[in-house]
Amino acid sequence: MNLRVYLAGQIHDDWRKEVEQKAKDKDLALTFVWPQTNHERSDNIGEDIFGEQPNNYFKDDAASSINNFRTQVLMERSDIVIALFGEKYKQWNTAMDASTAIAMNKPTIIIRPESHIHPLKELSNKANVTVETIDQALDVIAYIFE
Amino acid sequence: MNLRVYLAGQIHDDWRKEVEQKAKDKDLALTFVWPQTNHERSDNIGEDIFGEQPNNYFKDDAASSINNFRTQVLMERSDIVIALFGEKYKQWNTAMDASTAIAMNKPTIIIRPESHIHPLKELSNKANVTVETIDQALDVIAYIFE
Amino acid sequence: MNLRVYLAGQIHDDWRKEVEQKAKDKDLALTFVWPQTNHERSDNIGEDIFGEQPNNYFKDDAASSINNFRTQVLMERSDIVIALFGEKYKQWNTAMDASTAIAMNKPTIIIRPESHIHPLKELSNKANVTVETIDQALDVIAYIFE
Amino acid sequence: MNLRVYLAGQIHDDWRKEVEQKAKDKDLALTFVWPQTNHERSDNIGEDIFGEQPNNYFKDDAASSINNFRTQVLMERSDIVIALFGEKYKQWNTAMDASTAIAMNKPTIIIRPESHIHPLKELSNKANVTVETIDQALDVIAYIFE
Amino acid sequence: MNLRVYLAGQIHDDWRKEVEQKAKDKDLALTFVWPQTNHERSDNIGEDIFGEQPNNYFKDDAASSINNFRTQVLMERSDIVIALFGEKYKQWNTAMDASTAIAMNKPTIIIRPESHIHPLKELSNKANVTVETIDQALDVIAYIFE
Amino acid sequence: MNLRVYLAGQIHDDWRKEVEQKAKDKDLALTFVWPQTNHERSDNIGEDIFGEQPNNYFKDDAASSINNFRTQVLMERSDIVIALFGEKYKQWNTAMDASTAIAMNKPTIIIRPESHIHPLKELSNKANVTVETIDQALDVIAYIFE
Amino acid sequence: MNLRVYLAGQIHDDWRKEVEQKAKDKDLALTFVWPQTNHERSDNIGEDIFGEQPNNYFKDDAASSINNFRTQVLMERSDIVIALFGEKYKQWNTAMDASTAIAMNKPTIIIRPESHIHPLKELSNKANVTVETIDQALDVIAYIFE
Amino acid sequence: MNLRVYLAGQIHDDWRKEVEQKAKDKDLALTFVWPQTNHERSDNIGEDIFGEQPNNYFKDDAASSINNFRTQVLMERSDIVIALFGEKYKQWNTAMDASTAIAMNKPTIIIRPESHIHPLKELSNKANVTVETIDQALDVIAYIFE
Repeated sequence: MNLRVYLAGQIHDDWRKEVEQKAKDKDLALTFVWPQTNHERSDNIGEDIFGEQPNNYFKDDAASSINNFRTQVLMERSDIVIALFGEKYKQWNTAMDASTAIAMNKPTIIIRPESHIHPLKELSNKANVTVETIDQALDVIAYIFE
Repeated sequence: MNLRVYLAGQIHDDWRKEVEQKAKDKDLALTFVWPQTNHERSDNIGEDIFGEQPNNYFKDDAASSINNFRTQVLMERSDIVIALFGEKYKQWNTAMDASTAIAMNKPTIIIRPESHIHPLKELSNKANVTVETIDQALDVIAYIFE
Repeated sequence: MNLRVYLAGQIHDDWRKEVEQKAKDKDLALTFVWPQTNHERSDNIGEDIFGEQPNNYFKDDAASSINNFRTQVLMERSDIVIALFGEKYKQWNTAMDASTAIAMNKPTIIIRPESHIHPLKELSNKANVTVETIDQALDVIAYIFE
Repeated sequence: MNLRVYLAGQIHDDWRKEVEQKAKDKDLALTFVWPQTNHERSDNIGEDIFGEQPNNYFKDDAASSINNFRTQVLMERSDIVIALFGEKYKQWNTAMDASTAIAMNKPTIIIRPESHIHPLKELSNKANVTVETIDQALDVIAYIFE
Repeated sequence: MNLRVYLAGQIHDDWRKEVEQKAKDKDLALTFVWPQTNHERSDNIGEDIFGEQPNNYFKDDAASSINNFRTQVLMERSDIVIALFGEKYKQWNTAMDASTAIAMNKPTIIIRPESHIHPLKELSNKANVTVETIDQALDVIAYIFE
Repeated sequence: MNLRVYLAGQIHDDWRKEVEQKAKDKDLALTFVWPQTNHERSDNIGEDIFGEQPNNYFKDDAASSINNFRTQVLMERSDIVIALFGEKYKQWNTAMDASTAIAMNKPTIIIRPESHIHPLKELSNKANVTVETIDQALDVIAYIFE
Repeated sequence: MNLRVYLAGQIHDDWRKEVEQKAKDKDLALTFVWPQTNHERSDNIGEDIFGEQPNNYFKDDAASSINNFRTQVLMERSDIVIALFGEKYKQWNTAMDASTAIAMNKPTIIIRPESHIHPLKELSNKANVTVETIDQALDVIAYIFE
Repeated sequence: MNLRVYLAGQIHDDWRKEVEQKAKDKDLALTFVWPQTNHERSDNIGEDIFGEQPNNYFKDDAASSINNFRTQVLMERSDIVIALFGEKYKQWNTAMDASTAIAMNKPTIIIRPESHIHPLKELSNKANVTVETIDQALDVIAYIFE
């Protein structure tokens, strides 16, 4: 039994590579998918495909439709969702992806730093499990295979 | 035909009263429901009901379960969701409520300031309509009754 | 038992008034709702609420989001959908509304002229009933109350 | 991860072959399915299987039930739907298939010429992404694999 | 709390009147709806609305679409379904309505004579309750109000 | 806004009357429904309606189908479920009703004594809120109306 | 693309073997599943597993639960349902399986003799396609692969 | 056709090994999954991953979230659920898993000793099949493959 895991969350560092490497080290039968992690590409994808837009508002709207398309395809085909919140940034996409996954009954793990306990308390309560580190998230998933 | 509207969003000012008054002025057949807007009560509701908790983490977890219970009851019985993002705060509950409403196929309007166009672009793209002011949101709803 | 009927279809003549009057004449316990029938208002609603848009493409996109919002609210609260196709125009919104209603398991009646039998054959086959006149559509609904 | 894509739309030219070839050129792991593209066969399939019908109306009804059966089987097993509108024809089946796909939460891309922006504005707004060319549609899908 | 009950089953005698009268005698807060019970009208409704059809096959097909429309509207708005099988007739509509109700999670009671225990055993097993008499069916419903 | 609350749980004392009285004292707009609370009637309802059964196994099976019918009708029409576990008895129906309510996305409150924290931990974790007293459960519901 | 087809219908002759053989002859990528076709085994399966029952009623009830279990497992995993009605027998299970498949949105083909046109008209109208022979049913399915 | 079976139930003896061995002996194409069967590990998994908790209540709450995560992942990917009740223990998780499976329309078999007929009567009535021994449960599943 191989499980596909969608990795929602910020795209400002390479935490997904760390997840992937650690899962490999633990020999877990997991395949990972995720949103576009090249930030510039993610912001420009609308103009890259549709051509120049009248202003930033429309550039953003064009990009978001394609990013949402990608997320919908990949999340529907995933068995588990991990949503990681970092210390910085608004991370509303992370909240959106986690909430959507929960509403779709996808088993969902939130990773968030201690500093975010209070502002994320309602979302954490709705997720299956909330942890603070990538290692803990993988321990939770590894537990399925025990 | 009377419609019930859930007003998700920050609870740091009395924007819901403004919505309610303006809907009344426009003579719209709307009933509004919303989360607990007394911030202190919302944070303390867990300890108010369960008694003192070991520390802030558990105080937050207790409160969040009751806040989520309230939101679930009220949102399921609403016909429309308005989610307002202000300039400040993380507002992850607002993102969570809007995303959940969209996943439940509730017609959803987002109100957000111009400064948040970029970070909210994916969520805005998934909502039915995104506007910048309360007046615009009510104009969108009033259009149903024309 | 009062039933709410959504009247999808072209907005170039006042066929909805005819439906409403004939239902009244037949003393049927029906309430009718429908999309915005003021064509100009329907095309301009985006700019009316959001202000001027960069060009017609964006004017159309703005208007469509609000028209879709209205349709979604009203159709979800309807018990029956009638979709009328006239002789002229592309009428893709009519096809969209009928198809959406069918996918939502809303009992659906299509009214279409004989000239459209062939191009509408697949959609007609998916609808519950397809007729040629408003009188026939109301006869079908009146049959519920016999 | 291989994705199956349903290609809805007119059957008057061989645009599907173009999609298939270009996907192959881009090395995308896609499998394509589509409605019957032999127009005559599609119109006659009812009489081909059931024998001669009393008149064209019943010939059409017989054919449509089998065409709808085919579409339902194939669309339910697809991960993505592309719906292409050409310059000509009523194309109500294309509108029906796109609307059904959206109602089923299938990620959906519409391809339509600039001339159809206005009449397709509501359906475009409901689809995930709307583009003007086959290349753009494939760019959107290729973005999933980046 | 008033409950609406759909009475599926044969239309060859006036068993529905008996149900209605007995429910009144027991003072149960029930409203009853049912298919067209005028057999001739039920068979002719297609031709009554669409005009003469080429032959009996098409007469039947026309009638059935309108009968199904009626059933779908009424069953979706019912809280409980009673399906009565008599001694005679094929009664495939009764089996169809009961099976559809069960698949829709409508609480369903089957009434059938002892002679039909064997051929109806699988359908009986899927229904909530199977009884032999109208009085028993009403006793089961009356139990809700105790 | 009046809410209907299903009271699942043991039927060995009159805790439901206490809930009803306290809700009245708090002036909450709640209507309560519940399973058959006359234990003997609940055990005998099968034989009461179907007549004597071959042995206790079949007596139980007959009764359970009617009890399940009642629960399904009432739970589907409820907005909130409270499931109370007492100190004694197996209470598998309580666990069944709470689990079913949660799977149906009904907002659910569990009341259980401290002694049952451990054996009920997984079910408590899935419910929206778990409390120890009737007063706490009503405080949670009262919070919706604040 | 291999499709799994559930073959509902009478078990008094070996029509399923004919379907299987003809599908093989036509080189269709189909896998067939079906209910227990050994009539005696189907009737006795309850007593075979549970031991002797008090009387025929309970023997039937025991058997039906296991037959329904089998059908549910196999139908949920099927892409298409064919339901064949023969000239004789009540065939309520066939009607039940076809109706359940339709309610589950499984693409469904009914095969029935001309003599059953009238009594099966409502069910035929709800199915995707109704034909008279096995060859026609396979032609309909073969059409998917064209 | 290989089927995945979730084995819910008590973890105090090695009945799952017996199921697995007997299925192998009968040459059934089944794969089995189950909850954590190391009781100590199941109770401690919360503290094992999150670290020490303030008291047993919070230790239990932490563990239950991870056990529920595991169950949700595995049950959603199963075709059949077997829930075994033993003579002893409260076994509320077994009742919860069986009820959840039934609400999800998973074909479900309950195994329970004769002594539990009465307290489990309502849950047994909702399950597809209830048996007393592992052999009987496997006979029911084997029947699918006949």
